[in-house]
Amino acid sequence: MGSADITLYDYWRSSAAWRVRIGLNLKGVSYHSLPVHLVRDGGEQHRPEYRAVNPAGLVPTLLHGQRRITQSLAILEYLDEAFPRHPHLLPEDIRGRARVRALALTIAADTHPIHNLRVQQYLKDTMGLGEEQVARFVRHWLEEGFRTLEALLNDSSQTGRFSHRDHPTLADCVLVPGVYAARRFGAGIDACSTVLRIHDECMTLPAFQDAHPDRQPDAPKA
Amino acid sequence: MGSADITLYDYWRSSAAWRVRIGLNLKGVSYHSLPVHLVRDGGEQHRPEYRAVNPAGLVPTLLHGQRRITQSLAILEYLDEAFPRHPHLLPEDIRGRARVRALALTIAADTHPIHNLRVQQYLKDTMGLGEEQVARFVRHWLEEGFRTLEALLNDSSQTGRFSHRDHPTLADCVLVPGVYAARRFGAGIDACSTVLRIHDECMTLPAFQDAHPDRQPDAPKA
Repeated sequence: MGSADITLYDYWRSSAAWRVRIGLNLKGVSYHSLPVHLVRDGGEQHRPEYRAVNPAGLVPTLLHGQRRITQSLAILEYLDEAFPRHPHLLPEDIRGRARVRALALTIAADTHPIHNLRVQQYLKDTMGLGEEQVARFVRHWLEEGFRTLEALLNDSSQTGRFSHRDHPTLADCVLVPGVYAARRFGAGIDACSTVLRIHDECMTLPAFQDAHPDRQPDAPKA
Repeated sequence: MGSADITLYDYWRSSAAWRVRIGLNLKGVSYHSLPVHLVRDGGEQHRPEYRAVNPAGLVPTLLHGQRRITQSLAILEYLDEAFPRHPHLLPEDIRGRARVRALALTIAADTHPIHNLRVQQYLKDTMGLGEEQVARFVRHWLEEGFRTLEALLNDSSQTGRFSHRDHPTLADCVLVPGVYAARRFGAGIDACSTVLRIHDECMTLPAFQDAHPDRQPDAPKA
């Protein structure tokens, strides 16, 4: 399978780019990764060349032939619609689709944007907060987000081997990078046993393993 | 038209609840509003009764018969799928759908959650920042978000009378409450002329007028 006219503006440790890598792998769609270094030289995402591609100065951006799509969740929905015969990222039933989207948005909208790199930089560089204050802020929102996700998962008979039943979905594309961020920033999510069980289940699959930051071409060498 | 078995956990000035009110009105689906007061008595959204409905302690939540759906964008997509014969909130073509979702997420994921009430409260009450510091933080992210939205709109021949062509979509459901928030918090968005033109266009329609905070039953009396 595959479609070589797909390019992903990518960064190894970006949660949002990582979601899309997982989605592409689950769909079995091959792609070309174009790394945008978010830290080096003040951040390549702020360069005019990249702002012309993505005015937000954020990764990911997906190119599919002449089409240019921003926003990780919009990209994942797009992939599901553009490659309908490949494995689905969203369930077929209306209720299940709503549930998967809500699970994904719990982390992708209500958690990650609050503690993302650019917010951390703003709190430090513009507002003058100290490292420890910023770290506390980051941990707080990650813990809040995962407490909510855990409750939503435990609250439903639709939770299965994965976030929604027994096949990986959009919700799992978001969950796995979220857990990585929580661990990286030292957020306390040990009590989120369903989240962690699903994370570990996902990580048994090559689609998730191959999308991991450490396996990306732009990751620092060990 | 209408479906009286729809209940919206609502709050007059919540951007996210307001998006859903617009969507319900555009679809021509009648609903019962159940206000959750986000400020009074420390916030009714934190009560155990409401956390049992929505573990995030956020509005909106939609009940449709036995179905319970959280997250404003998931609710809007749900309404579009559950009432497919009513006016569409998303275009029919795949590329247009991706564009509308990306426009919506630019504000609903990358802007609003960062400056939302609960983040403002955390910055003030837990981190001890002053009113003016918090206001600056809020304005910064609103200005950043609307600069991006303006660029995305000006960058595309698909922008029409509304965010996407000549009919209101999901993107407009998000744009209008965002502009209200920008004005409320004094963010500088005067240069975003396309955003403001679309806002004014939307506000000529009863679906948008009727969803305005000031017209909600729980709005403070003038």
